[in-house]
Amino acid sequence: MDGQEAIEELIAQMARLPGLGPRSARRAVLHLVKKRDARLVPLARLLTEVGQSVRPCLNCGNIATADICGICAAGDRANGQICVVEDVADLWAMERAQVFKGRYHVLGGTLSPLDDVGPDDLAIPKLRDRISAEAVTEVILALNATVDGQTTAHYVARELEATGVQVFGLARGMPVGGELDYMDDGTLRAALSQRQPI
Amino acid sequence: MDGQEAIEELIAQMARLPGLGPRSARRAVLHLVKKRDARLVPLARLLTEVGQSVRPCLNCGNIATADICGICAAGDRANGQICVVEDVADLWAMERAQVFKGRYHVLGGTLSPLDDVGPDDLAIPKLRDRISAEAVTEVILALNATVDGQTTAHYVARELEATGVQVFGLARGMPVGGELDYMDDGTLRAALSQRQPI
Repeated sequence: MDGQEAIEELIAQMARLPGLGPRSARRAVLHLVKKRDARLVPLARLLTEVGQSVRPCLNCGNIATADICGICAAGDRANGQICVVEDVADLWAMERAQVFKGRYHVLGGTLSPLDDVGPDDLAIPKLRDRISAEAVTEVILALNATVDGQTTAHYVARELEATGVQVFGLARGMPVGGELDYMDDGTLRAALSQRQPI
Repeated sequence: MDGQEAIEELIAQMARLPGLGPRSARRAVLHLVKKRDARLVPLARLLTEVGQSVRPCLNCGNIATADICGICAAGDRANGQICVVEDVADLWAMERAQVFKGRYHVLGGTLSPLDDVGPDDLAIPKLRDRISAEAVTEVILALNATVDGQTTAHYVARELEATGVQVFGLARGMPVGGELDYMDDGTLRAALSQRQPI
């Protein structure tokens, strides 16, 4: 492959990233090529490094650079709580918020009959194993507040009944900064029925 | 740098690409990491390859993988025409349209007193050299139809007067698919004054 073809192929690969199309991929590649030493070379180095070291955590399914991820390996996070998320992106969102001090479990999706995703495609057996192996007392199902997310939450909760662990879902209500006038009916209904003393 | 830091640093570098922000960079990196063999590894390889070979064409300023780019090196494109563009992205746009069979000259910007870009910052002397060296008979100033672009076009045209070469600008008028009702006054004025027999 000569250099010009490599540039074309690089644009094609960039265009397949989520959030980029052919046009923005061209812009991005041109930007990289113009700032070769400051941008392109470090990016190439980082990609190579990450590509060599990255793998899924064998315990929780998080993205890791060792067999066990940093969160699962940290002793102070074994507090008996497991937060179940659909995807690694959701795990990252929880970690950014710095509100959860326990460990995670990545399901790898939600039940979705239309997309042919059944219980066997999710990491539910592994979750059951962890509950006894890690002396878990509390499971928090931090799934999306969508139909698929909530269906999955109910399914997982039922599957965990036999373990005797306490199972929670995230609270529903007004998001911070939300305006009453713009809330949908379901959110208002949840916010009212789960009202809190001030 | 351990693996987790490399992932964080990779997200930071991706977020600095035009068209991507922190959020879309995270999504893109997660996508790459999940599809390591199909996406991440080829992208890393291509970036490394391009990073090693890419450089500006010494003749026209196009991005090349040799001292002279493919267009300048192609004998059949020495037809006496040079198309002057502001940026490599514009050269790519012309090439995609496959409407120009001559060579290009990348100015590297437009005159812009506010941004402190003067004539010395543009590749105008080199353009003058090429006109005699390559027996150029026609220069087409394919600059943006903006104030900066047109100021630059007039400046370049005046600079080339002594060479005796014919200097053209791109036609102004209705773009293909344009609707009269949505055209601005300047476009309508140009389209009317440069009207063509049918």
